[in-house]
Amino acid sequence: MTLSMHQASVPVFVQGLKGLKGVLTKAAAQVEAKGWDADALLKARLYPDMFPLIRQVQIATDFAKGCCARLAGQEVPAWDDVETSFAKLIARIDRAIAYVEGLDPAAFAGAEDRDITLTRRGETSVVKGLAYFQGQAQPNFFFHLTTAYAILRHNGVEVGKRDYLGMA
Amino acid sequence: MTLSMHQASVPVFVQGLKGLKGVLTKAAAQVEAKGWDADALLKARLYPDMFPLIRQVQIATDFAKGCCARLAGQEVPAWDDVETSFAKLIARIDRAIAYVEGLDPAAFAGAEDRDITLTRRGETSVVKGLAYFQGQAQPNFFFHLTTAYAILRHNGVEVGKRDYLGMA
Repeated sequence: MTLSMHQASVPVFVQGLKGLKGVLTKAAAQVEAKGWDADALLKARLYPDMFPLIRQVQIATDFAKGCCARLAGQEVPAWDDVETSFAKLIARIDRAIAYVEGLDPAAFAGAEDRDITLTRRGETSVVKGLAYFQGQAQPNFFFHLTTAYAILRHNGVEVGKRDYLGMA
Repeated sequence: MTLSMHQASVPVFVQGLKGLKGVLTKAAAQVEAKGWDADALLKARLYPDMFPLIRQVQIATDFAKGCCARLAGQEVPAWDDVETSFAKLIARIDRAIAYVEGLDPAAFAGAEDRDITLTRRGETSVVKGLAYFQGQAQPNFFFHLTTAYAILRHNGVEVGKRDYLGMA
């Protein structure tokens, strides 16, 4: 047995998104319990030129839906970046999980060799599906997932590795 | 075509480790150029009960060598955690890259269904190779990679996403 591109990608994104949802759920409960200003966490950054928590979560979901859509040969759904609360960020994560789980596994057949066209800052590049998934989408996804977690931990939110892993 | 477990795992760890090496190389150069105390960065943490930079790098390399060894049916090499400088951390990363690149791709055949026995804090559990790779080793690897990056960025080290991705 070997792995299909569907098996290689979708479960990884789903587990990561479920972990992120659990982390944000605990953060929201702690904000509530301690009477903290939710905005102070939602807009927190690790450094002035890094993205705040809200944006980290938006980008993590974007890499999940964008990568799976491209591997399945679908148009990438465009979602407005309008979340302003933990509840809305969690709803966006649920939407991303539903989207990637709803894609037809058969549509991923041959995705490893498919040309993926990416446009960033006006520049277009073409990479093969496997190189895109392994070299760009997946490491970027984990980058934003972990940075969201790191922002919360740095601010004293009591979450642990098992939350991040989606095992809590 | 589908993916072998070797294709699914080794290139991901190698790219991540090369990115981490690039990030640490830039950090060391900045310490030197600014006359900073290297120990202040090497022992920096995002929160008092999180691991410092040195340990993040050690654990990232441990997940790379440990996962690839287990998938290839090899004994996991035990390395002492003795690094005290950027140069020694980079040497450990080079050692991890050489180890995972040196494993025989054929030894990964069928690894997705192989029983992997893990012992953590005295408790033993058995998981299949694919679940171990996707659910535990890979997300943990990226967690420590990104947290190392986040510690450096939080302390003002000038590195960017392309460094993390190994594209710089």
